Amino acid sequence: MKKLRVGVIGATGYTGEEIVRLLARHPRVEVTYASGKEERNLRLQEIFPYLQGRIDLECRAFSPEEALKECDFVFLSLPHTVSMRVAPLFLKAAKPVVDTSADYRLKDVKIYERFYKTPHADPVYLKRAVYGLPELHRARIKKAKLIANPGCYPTAAILGVLPGFSDGLFHPKGIVIDAKSGVTGAGRKADKALLFSEVNESFKAYKVFEHQHVPEMNQELTQWAKKAVDVVFVPHLLPLNRGILSTIYVSLAGRISTASLVERYRSFYAQEPFVRVLENGALPEVKHAAHTNFCHIGLRVDETKKLAVIVTAIDNLGKGAAGQAIQNMNLMRGFDEREGLYS
Amino acid sequence: MKKLRVGVIGATGYTGEEIVRLLARHPRVEVTYASGKEERNLRLQEIFPYLQGRIDLECRAFSPEEALKECDFVFLSLPHTVSMRVAPLFLKAAKPVVDTSADYRLKDVKIYERFYKTPHADPVYLKRAVYGLPELHRARIKKAKLIANPGCYPTAAILGVLPGFSDGLFHPKGIVIDAKSGVTGAGRKADKALLFSEVNESFKAYKVFEHQHVPEMNQELTQWAKKAVDVVFVPHLLPLNRGILSTIYVSLAGRISTASLVERYRSFYAQEPFVRVLENGALPEVKHAAHTNFCHIGLRVDETKKLAVIVTAIDNLGKGAAGQAIQNMNLMRGFDEREGLYS
Amino acid sequence: MKKLRVGVIGATGYTGEEIVRLLARHPRVEVTYASGKEERNLRLQEIFPYLQGRIDLECRAFSPEEALKECDFVFLSLPHTVSMRVAPLFLKAAKPVVDTSADYRLKDVKIYERFYKTPHADPVYLKRAVYGLPELHRARIKKAKLIANPGCYPTAAILGVLPGFSDGLFHPKGIVIDAKSGVTGAGRKADKALLFSEVNESFKAYKVFEHQHVPEMNQELTQWAKKAVDVVFVPHLLPLNRGILSTIYVSLAGRISTASLVERYRSFYAQEPFVRVLENGALPEVKHAAHTNFCHIGLRVDETKKLAVIVTAIDNLGKGAAGQAIQNMNLMRGFDEREGLYS
Amino acid sequence: MKKLRVGVIGATGYTGEEIVRLLARHPRVEVTYASGKEERNLRLQEIFPYLQGRIDLECRAFSPEEALKECDFVFLSLPHTVSMRVAPLFLKAAKPVVDTSADYRLKDVKIYERFYKTPHADPVYLKRAVYGLPELHRARIKKAKLIANPGCYPTAAILGVLPGFSDGLFHPKGIVIDAKSGVTGAGRKADKALLFSEVNESFKAYKVFEHQHVPEMNQELTQWAKKAVDVVFVPHLLPLNRGILSTIYVSLAGRISTASLVERYRSFYAQEPFVRVLENGALPEVKHAAHTNFCHIGLRVDETKKLAVIVTAIDNLGKGAAGQAIQNMNLMRGFDEREGLYS
Repeated sequence: MKKLRVGVIGATGYTGEEIVRLLARHPRVEVTYASGKEERNLRLQEIFPYLQGRIDLECRAFSPEEALKECDFVFLSLPHTVSMRVAPLFLKAAKPVVDTSADYRLKDVKIYERFYKTPHADPVYLKRAVYGLPELHRARIKKAKLIANPGCYPTAAILGVLPGFSDGLFHPKGIVIDAKSGVTGAGRKADKALLFSEVNESFKAYKVFEHQHVPEMNQELTQWAKKAVDVVFVPHLLPLNRGILSTIYVSLAGRISTASLVERYRSFYAQEPFVRVLENGALPEVKHAAHTNFCHIGLRVDETKKLAVIVTAIDNLGKGAAGQAIQNMNLMRGFDEREGLYS
Repeated sequence: MKKLRVGVIGATGYTGEEIVRLLARHPRVEVTYASGKEERNLRLQEIFPYLQGRIDLECRAFSPEEALKECDFVFLSLPHTVSMRVAPLFLKAAKPVVDTSADYRLKDVKIYERFYKTPHADPVYLKRAVYGLPELHRARIKKAKLIANPGCYPTAAILGVLPGFSDGLFHPKGIVIDAKSGVTGAGRKADKALLFSEVNESFKAYKVFEHQHVPEMNQELTQWAKKAVDVVFVPHLLPLNRGILSTIYVSLAGRISTASLVERYRSFYAQEPFVRVLENGALPEVKHAAHTNFCHIGLRVDETKKLAVIVTAIDNLGKGAAGQAIQNMNLMRGFDEREGLYS
Repeated sequence: MKKLRVGVIGATGYTGEEIVRLLARHPRVEVTYASGKEERNLRLQEIFPYLQGRIDLECRAFSPEEALKECDFVFLSLPHTVSMRVAPLFLKAAKPVVDTSADYRLKDVKIYERFYKTPHADPVYLKRAVYGLPELHRARIKKAKLIANPGCYPTAAILGVLPGFSDGLFHPKGIVIDAKSGVTGAGRKADKALLFSEVNESFKAYKVFEHQHVPEMNQELTQWAKKAVDVVFVPHLLPLNRGILSTIYVSLAGRISTASLVERYRSFYAQEPFVRVLENGALPEVKHAAHTNFCHIGLRVDETKKLAVIVTAIDNLGKGAAGQAIQNMNLMRGFDEREGLYS
Repeated sequence: MKKLRVGVIGATGYTGEEIVRLLARHPRVEVTYASGKEERNLRLQEIFPYLQGRIDLECRAFSPEEALKECDFVFLSLPHTVSMRVAPLFLKAAKPVVDTSADYRLKDVKIYERFYKTPHADPVYLKRAVYGLPELHRARIKKAKLIANPGCYPTAAILGVLPGFSDGLFHPKGIVIDAKSGVTGAGRKADKALLFSEVNESFKAYKVFEHQHVPEMNQELTQWAKKAVDVVFVPHLLPLNRGILSTIYVSLAGRISTASLVERYRSFYAQEPFVRVLENGALPEVKHAAHTNFCHIGLRVDETKKLAVIVTAIDNLGKGAAGQAIQNMNLMRGFDEREGLYS
């Protein structure tokens, strides 16, 4: 069997690194190209010593010519606003792309431009891009050439409320998503606010009401619920490396017990390889989802108040970024969806 | 000036230790008695080396006779259900007590018994106890002999919503308090769930809807708002030592801008020595409140949704426990309210 | 191919949990029996939700009869002094055992008894036990029925100095091993000294000169160097979950440059699947060895002082315990030595 | 009593911030000038909200004219190589300076230039500078106009070995200092290697043999021991905010028991207000020294090997930087040496 030749553009950020780590043990692919902005000309295994003996590849400054020549499938782990200038190079050469930036996620370019403060450079491919959340769009992902890999917060939030919207149990109004993310979610960038001693032993809310992932959640949930959904979203920065826990408050349109809601969720996700609905009142903990591609979900209903609290946990680099990107590649190439993913 | 002779019963838990640390530099008191369950017969300065040269006192097994003889003012840092058996010993001898347990906080013994699973042993002194939140009950604290020092979560929550309830701006229904606490909040007890490797690199919700601090919040807020308040409260465990951040979601009864709400809060708390309302849209961070007796408050309004998000930060051992206990002692004894507290 | 039926006795400690996690994805084995002291009667996948869909097994109180019936190969993850009472049950039934406790590591029972404060209960099998460090004893491990899986500190220390002892480059006297371990090394036990808020934001040395792993290092290094080795060993407790970094100071018997020493180490370990000697002056970091079965080694020589500093990093639960245990099983059963291990 | 008008140049780094925090509660000084590179034109209390109500001062870009006009005593918390261009401005105007950089610590400019890669710009004042370790140079500090505040590692190391060198008990050769520092020691600078997710859950050695603090230790110890001392120094980066623990290995020239060595240290440091030698075999922990100006020392002797292990703990921002700077100011101005310092 010939292995798929895969390139990772932006291999030295947290998401790019995690994609490489996962690909290094994926039985059906070979990483044949890697680029990174600041570590150029080092070999990947010098930057990440745990790759020694697994990968032997120079991490170069990005060259479209080299990349096009050396790989047949591409992961883009570039900053927002950069991806949309790079993706077309590969798409035009019929090389499929999974883009982990936000550039192809928002269908409405006006909303994109409001949140990312720049005109969209590639409205053409944007139209063909598929939002890569397999639990929502598996069939379309299988046929896609360009995947907009979902944001970490939207993955954790959307998976938490899908089953309740499928038949009107949840009110579309007044959903509160209080989300807490580990620090790798902010990327590997030289920013004083992300220094160890700034984050450690602290905790804070940020971008209240204004986070760029809000329109992504609203777009997908509105489409799914077939009613306008406009979430209240407050993200927080957790002093840990990997993981998101979202505590979601929803008003119930009808009466339901905790046990019945758990049952409904379990049945909704029964065929999903990477969603676990916890039983017996268990609530998820970040550590059990970290270093996996799973979303763990726990549920509690206050019947008097007609309110449900849904708690979801994912690894922001796993199901929230690199893991989901590999899952999408597996679907696009007809591999087993679980191949090469964390076990 | 003769110093007040103070005893700390339960000096080796996190709250007791912090009370001793603060008292050791308080200019008007002397710690003359300390008891602790497990470290008995060690000197305090051996258990806590930073006390060497500050305090020279044996930490003994609790003896009522010794305690009554050796101190004139008592802090009880005992587990819930134990304090109410110890406090009367001191009160009958006219020695004032600040109790940091929950035993004297809930005026309705039925509610106490439901949450703490035991009959209340001291309904007589319960009636005379004053809930020790100076921002609510300063005048009564000054005259009290028994202070029920507030819980850490209620302190962080109540201070966050008081100004909005004072004239009906906040709907009493539907308040959501999503709170996150550092691990010292759980006490220094040998519990596997609190081991470093269980908590570190993780995060979880717990006691959803069921936390024993809920009735405390409802009691004080209902009394203040003069309407029934029944909060939705979800606490979480943060991987850090000290600090609580509460993210509070309230529905607005009327229109108000963020700037006006900030102004209203600043004016409400203008005379308070230990509340800081942040300006210019700043949001509090745990690290800035940690190791202080302050509550920091930040505010944001979504005028379209008629929703306010209030974020409060305290040190759970400072304003949330030991610091507030000292503040109460200062009020009871007529000292400067800020004396001996973190500067 | 029929899978090996494996049992894990003590599956709820950190080492036992990690053995189960690794076995759950090992292609040649099936976990058919698991026991644990405190979580009995829960299913493993309830205790460790990340096992849902991977393993479906009750975690019972240990029953020799059940264990003998339900598995053909056994991992013991029991406390020191307990293993030596359990291992013979399996060995007598010809079921091979990998024991992760210290009970079968020290060949001299007097030394065992001095450090573990109890007579050795099984001197017979002790004689046949093989010290399970593949880099030292691979041939004997392949034929062994009872493996004494090495301690985490000895693994990190011995691998760091083996190449220098093989031809007299290192003085056997005066080796200083300054070791720092993550908290899982202390086990999952309800001990106040291991609480999050005791360990977090702190660091300390402990058991200076007296750690029970000292005789283990001396035994193996003396045997290898063919001269009496008596190390100076000071362990420290790091505020992190997984990993050991050892900084080793050795006097050089002759002149050698850093580059030559690196070369000598690379050549010594060239065939080893789980040792990486870093090039170009790189020094190991805990994070790159964590969640792997590798030992990473970095070296520096001060030629003037005739001194080498060797820094080694392992995951105390990986190469330092569970990973190495699986590696030993692989060798004993003729599997690929790397099978099922972290990639 | 008129308060001393104090300026802090570089008030937004970790050391500068801590100096301001301490000065804000010092009864004999007033902070009348503060400059900072990146936060210019914000008020200090906006940058550090815990200063609200304590200080009301704009943090400006540094202006020599303003600074000279507005303060009479100056703390420089500037990067190495910058201080030596700024200090003379104040010294020429007869305003005393405590410099927390390395610029005035090394008496031999050649050594300075080798380690700091730049010619020394101010050899004149360098000659008059006093190395600000009160335990070594108290009398000279009292009369000094320019203090070279010691490095954090040298403070922790020198205090650990002084008593043993005072009468030849310690061999001057072969001292090994294995030091571990919290991350604030590296300063508040936008450096990817200091990001939370790079440091957290990791640990590493760095600058083996080459750290710029080595010549500082050698200079002071050689002078004190009256014999050439050349230490082996390996620093490590701890995943915590504040604190240094140094584990020091020294060869003993004669026989001495642990108890006698402890006694010798206690007697040597008996009059020191900020050194605590622990009794009864206790070893220091970072958490007990953190947020204080103390150095805690624990000792163990291996009589057979004629080796002592000395463990010291300080707060790198306390006794290792800002606290010691205040202590020096107190001595220079004739205040109580302990005034305004952590209690």
